[in-house]
Amino acid sequence: MTTDPTSPDGRRIVIVGGVAGGMSAAARARRLDTRARIVVLEQGHYVSFANCGLPYHLSGEIPDRSALLLHTPASLARTLDLDVRTGHRALAIDRAAREVTVRSAAGTYTLPYDALILAPGAEAVRPPIDGLDHPVVHSLRTVPDVDGMRARIDALTDASGRDAPTAVVVGAGFIGLEAVEALVARGLHVHLVELADQVLPPLDAELAPLLAEELLTRGVHLHLGASAQSVAAMDTGSAGVARVTLSDGAVISADLVVVNVGVRPASSLAREAGLELGARGAIRVDADQRTSDPHIWAVGDAVEVVQAVTGAPAPVPLAGPANRQGRRAADAVCGRRTTPQAPVLGTAIVRVFGLTAAVTGASQARLRAAGVDHEVVHLHPAHHAGYFPGAEQIHLVASFAPDGTLLGAQAVGRAGVDKRIDVLATAIRAGMGADDLAELELAYAPPYGSAKDPVNMLGFVAQNVLDGTMPQWQAWDLDEILATTLVLDVRSRTEFDAEHLEGALNIPHTELRQHLGTVREAAAGRPVSVHCASGVRSYLATRVLLADGRDARNLSGGWLTLQAVRP
Amino acid sequence: MTTDPTSPDGRRIVIVGGVAGGMSAAARARRLDTRARIVVLEQGHYVSFANCGLPYHLSGEIPDRSALLLHTPASLARTLDLDVRTGHRALAIDRAAREVTVRSAAGTYTLPYDALILAPGAEAVRPPIDGLDHPVVHSLRTVPDVDGMRARIDALTDASGRDAPTAVVVGAGFIGLEAVEALVARGLHVHLVELADQVLPPLDAELAPLLAEELLTRGVHLHLGASAQSVAAMDTGSAGVARVTLSDGAVISADLVVVNVGVRPASSLAREAGLELGARGAIRVDADQRTSDPHIWAVGDAVEVVQAVTGAPAPVPLAGPANRQGRRAADAVCGRRTTPQAPVLGTAIVRVFGLTAAVTGASQARLRAAGVDHEVVHLHPAHHAGYFPGAEQIHLVASFAPDGTLLGAQAVGRAGVDKRIDVLATAIRAGMGADDLAELELAYAPPYGSAKDPVNMLGFVAQNVLDGTMPQWQAWDLDEILATTLVLDVRSRTEFDAEHLEGALNIPHTELRQHLGTVREAAAGRPVSVHCASGVRSYLATRVLLADGRDARNLSGGWLTLQAVRP
Ligand SMILES: Cc1cc2nc3c(=O)[nH]c(=O)nc-3n(C[C@H](O)[C@H](O)[C@H](O)COP(=O)(O)OP(=O)(O)OC[C@H]3O[C@@H](n4cnc5c(N)ncnc54)[C@H](O)[C@@H]3O)c2cc1C
Ligand SMILES: Cc1cc2nc3c(=O)[nH]c(=O)nc-3n(C[C@H](O)[C@H](O)[C@H](O)COP(=O)(O)OP(=O)(O)OC[C@H]3O[C@@H](n4cnc5c(N)ncnc54)[C@H](O)[C@@H]3O)c2cc1C
Ligand SMILES: CC(C)(COP(=O)(O)OP(=O)(O)OC[C@H]1O[C@@H](n2cnc3c(N)ncnc32)[C@H](O)[C@@H]1OP(=O)(O)O)[C@@H](O)C(=O)NCCC(=O)NCCS
Ligand SMILES: CC(C)(COP(=O)(O)OP(=O)(O)OC[C@H]1O[C@@H](n2cnc3c(N)ncnc32)[C@H](O)[C@@H]1OP(=O)(O)O)[C@@H](O)C(=O)NCCC(=O)NCCS
Repeated sequence: MTTDPTSPDGRRIVIVGGVAGGMSAAARARRLDTRARIVVLEQGHYVSFANCGLPYHLSGEIPDRSALLLHTPASLARTLDLDVRTGHRALAIDRAAREVTVRSAAGTYTLPYDALILAPGAEAVRPPIDGLDHPVVHSLRTVPDVDGMRARIDALTDASGRDAPTAVVVGAGFIGLEAVEALVARGLHVHLVELADQVLPPLDAELAPLLAEELLTRGVHLHLGASAQSVAAMDTGSAGVARVTLSDGAVISADLVVVNVGVRPASSLAREAGLELGARGAIRVDADQRTSDPHIWAVGDAVEVVQAVTGAPAPVPLAGPANRQGRRAADAVCGRRTTPQAPVLGTAIVRVFGLTAAVTGASQARLRAAGVDHEVVHLHPAHHAGYFPGAEQIHLVASFAPDGTLLGAQAVGRAGVDKRIDVLATAIRAGMGADDLAELELAYAPPYGSAKDPVNMLGFVAQNVLDGTMPQWQAWDLDEILATTLVLDVRSRTEFDAEHLEGALNIPHTELRQHLGTVREAAAGRPVSVHCASGVRSYLATRVLLADGRDARNLSGGWLTLQAVRP
Repeated sequence: MTTDPTSPDGRRIVIVGGVAGGMSAAARARRLDTRARIVVLEQGHYVSFANCGLPYHLSGEIPDRSALLLHTPASLARTLDLDVRTGHRALAIDRAAREVTVRSAAGTYTLPYDALILAPGAEAVRPPIDGLDHPVVHSLRTVPDVDGMRARIDALTDASGRDAPTAVVVGAGFIGLEAVEALVARGLHVHLVELADQVLPPLDAELAPLLAEELLTRGVHLHLGASAQSVAAMDTGSAGVARVTLSDGAVISADLVVVNVGVRPASSLAREAGLELGARGAIRVDADQRTSDPHIWAVGDAVEVVQAVTGAPAPVPLAGPANRQGRRAADAVCGRRTTPQAPVLGTAIVRVFGLTAAVTGASQARLRAAGVDHEVVHLHPAHHAGYFPGAEQIHLVASFAPDGTLLGAQAVGRAGVDKRIDVLATAIRAGMGADDLAELELAYAPPYGSAKDPVNMLGFVAQNVLDGTMPQWQAWDLDEILATTLVLDVRSRTEFDAEHLEGALNIPHTELRQHLGTVREAAAGRPVSVHCASGVRSYLATRVLLADGRDARNLSGGWLTLQAVRP
């Protein structure tokens, strides 16, 4: 039982930024120190608003705008005795005098502090597109942003007798995808433009095509590997419509353009005050959120964190970390034992119509970039017992270190994705490996899971790959495989006839034991590259072939993964 | 890369029991050793059937009976080259000769083995009820059991013009509750009889009333703290109906009686062979599933495991552990490195109409029985962002050691329960504590969770309780609290007026700072026991009172938990 470090003299805590990280810090500080004088400065008109809910108000799924405004300065004064000042912008920090210069409608003033917490968030990156000031161009970051977009959409859809309006969404990241979903829900024709050659760039390349497929199914036009180059007025001069030109030559006449190509830390205040900055200009902090100035802490989108697995520093602009960092900064400011910041996994999730995509830990791209040795496994298990109605396939990819440690996991599917990624995020944080996943004891009854949960299955498969029970080949090596090995397709004849790899030999796995000689001859000394639809039957076949002395390997994730990688 | 331990001479593996543990062992053994001779003995008519799916076939939710039969001996021969013998019962083991005596319709024979795996499962406990042989009495364990019940129900419901038939379900454990749900779905009037004074005895007493409420809402009649004493023919002699007499004097005329009061390890074969037995007659095995005989392994419902947290040995009859133990036994038999059995958490889940109840780790009752010091916290967070439509409350209870280690967790709710329990099961396995939960990075977007997930929230609250930031009182201590302290209700006046504790003082938390004097006077030196609806507002109030020098404590889980404990 620690004693209560209250401040009879009224410790002065000033917080810059009144949303996720800032207001979490303010609330926690008040709970820890009922006597402190806590001032929250927010340049905008709203505090404590649900940024993450904005796309769903845009769509109308959250019909009531006020649901997004979790608090007002008045309610925060009443419940938490906070002095919250909207429309007040922190202009400068005088570290020697411990004062913040603040500008408000009423003028500029200075505010002394004993502890200063910076939670200014991030700023939207403005991509190099000509004509970004055209009135049809919007961004999706704040309440006024959504108000503006809703007004435009209402006006467009009120104009009866005309076709559905057209929107161009630039950037297929998390928020871009949420914007697409929202605009389709509002009845717009949507074009999605993304510089990378896949949607949701943080997603492994094997999974992204599933999202692309879903978007196409919902009528979204995809422009991948393309950038928007200009937004220009129409020759006809018709207002409220713009001509959007893409790098691939496409020209779209758009009623609405939404640009969300990422954010950058809002660190100018910190930089000008001479605080140490790190990766991509983010504010450098220690595990207690303290900056290079002992009286200043910083949290949220504006700060640099250590990424799990690779150890690379980077800003990771997510609400969960921002909220917890705010709480931690308050603990530190109030002299409490803190829960030090753990390396950040970047666990993130997005709904794309009927699909959910989620990631945790290091993606394959990050592992490659960091030069971390890893083995990738692909699975497509059902989200609950296959015999129970409504089982949906989860497409699961995970990377393991040679010693079995789980490094990262990603999943796409219609159900049960969030649960598996949360379990895997917990497992990575705990330093678990393939053996631990194999032995996890997850809740099983038919409506919820399987006796061998997809997470256990991931452990089993990784064990088999890592200990050599199941050597594997990867879909991205197909060209080399076709050139140098015998491809053995152990699916049924019907499946084979429907579609198969050029030159593949078809022996259904149930008949393989009777035809080992055929394989031996066809292989003629070459390795045998086995596959089936998902990897399960071909695993059995691989075992039979290995026992017969073949150099056999199983295609990770089977035909399902192959199709995604090589459509 | 280990080399492949195949057996050119054809290692002889005999497996007793052809369902969860046994068939998992057989399948894994075949994958590891393509040349072994593997015989599976199953006394029943079916192998590889989905026991856990039986209640859902009873209800009709799984309409197709064949969906439950995952394999036949023929399909297992074809895919896995297994010699599966249904209708063959292992009668005795000659350990010296390494032979099993087997009885089949064709006669009795002996079967030699190099390795023997016992997976005989469990047997239904027959409670001391007179007349259990009456034809209306059924149990729910096998495919024929369900066939029989379905036939009876079809006959009952075909008899047109009569009222809905009546069923008595004896035992409100996991399977009993699934049976109740199924019978209600089939249109029966259901009486549920349970010896304990709550449904689902493994559930903490604070959560069980939520299930009881749901059962009552669906028209189920509850007889808690009662036992069935006899099932007797009706005086009228009308066949197909029985008079069921309960210990509390109730007499029910029942068309169907379903008895599921628990299971006991089916260890007679092992016992007669002189293998070492442990808790409740379960077969004793090491972390590799090996029994006291080096050539015999055992898995599943028949074996004793070490329970996590308390370390107490017990059989834990669940499908996940059985499946994984089967896999492990095969690894051991085939000379593979095994994934040793971790202490068993007993993670389990059940759907009760619209509710889900799930548990992992040690319950409070088990902690008390084992004398393990622990602190209990109660929360009622929303399963995803509250501002997103469809947020459902999760009722979450967890126990922590004084050093913060998570010992057990349970939850009831309409959505998101399985996910939280799986994350918490992973956390217990990893040895995580309150600090780790506070820092877990779980997937957040509004449709899936909250920036501060319920699991993080559990960590926060536990930290506050354990470090003295938030002293708490428990609903079960209400009598003492009423007698010795001032109860301060910080809910709004409207909430207070609707219902409140006798003698409580009402000061809404937003007004508390202005009325500290009132509290001081009313307390008159006594401690102040604060509460609100769920614990959040009263936590703020507790902090304010502590700073004012009061000896204040917050009611864990608030009015919601109090109501469940003291209806
Ligand atoms: C549309 C949208 C959807 C999102 N969805 C998700 C999601 O589903 N899941 C997820 O994890 N994350 C999501 N995020 C990200 C998440 O909202 C941010 O990571 C989080 O809000 C960051 O918290 P913060 O406190 O650092 O910054 P913010 O919450 O952005 O708050 C910073 C505040 O500081 C103010 N400010 C800046 N400088 C000054 C100054 N000098 N003086 C005064 N005030 C200042 C700004 O006006 C701003 O209001 C989403 C973000 C957006 C925009
Ligand atoms: C209705 C029902 C619902 C369930 N729901 C769930 C659930 O939702 N989640 C969960 O985790 N668990 C559930 N279970 C429990 C789960 O099914 C068991 O834990 C699991 O099947 C145990 O596996 P086992 O291999 O040990 O035994 P079993 O699967 O029961 O197999 C044992 C087999 O051995 C055979 N046998 C026994 N003795 C001999 C002998 N001498 N010779 C030949 N054969 C023999 C038996 O006939 C039996 O078929 C449920 C069980 C039932 C009955
Ligand atoms: C609304 C806001 C001010 C709330 O901050 P907060 O008070 O720290 O958070 P919550 O309301 O979730 O309450 C959490 C506190 O209640 C406590 N608590 C929760 N349930 C409890 C219970 N049953 N009993 C006792 N205490 C409980 C927690 O321990 C925690 O307190 P602590 O931090 O002192 O340990 C802040 O989160 C905010 O401004 N959010 C909007 C912006 C945002 O987050 N955007 C991004 C996501 S959309
Ligand atoms: C049906 C039954 C025979 C299946 O046993 P099984 O073959 O071990 O289990 P699965 O079919 O789930 O397959 C798991 C295997 O496929 C492998 N696998 C799964 N997905 C894979 C993929 N994409 N690529 C390669 N291998 C894969 C796993 O690694 C595992 O193999 P391993 O144990 O050698 O590592 C057995 O579980 C059974 O009889 N079940 C019914 C009874 C029962 O379980 N009742 C209780 C619950 S209702």
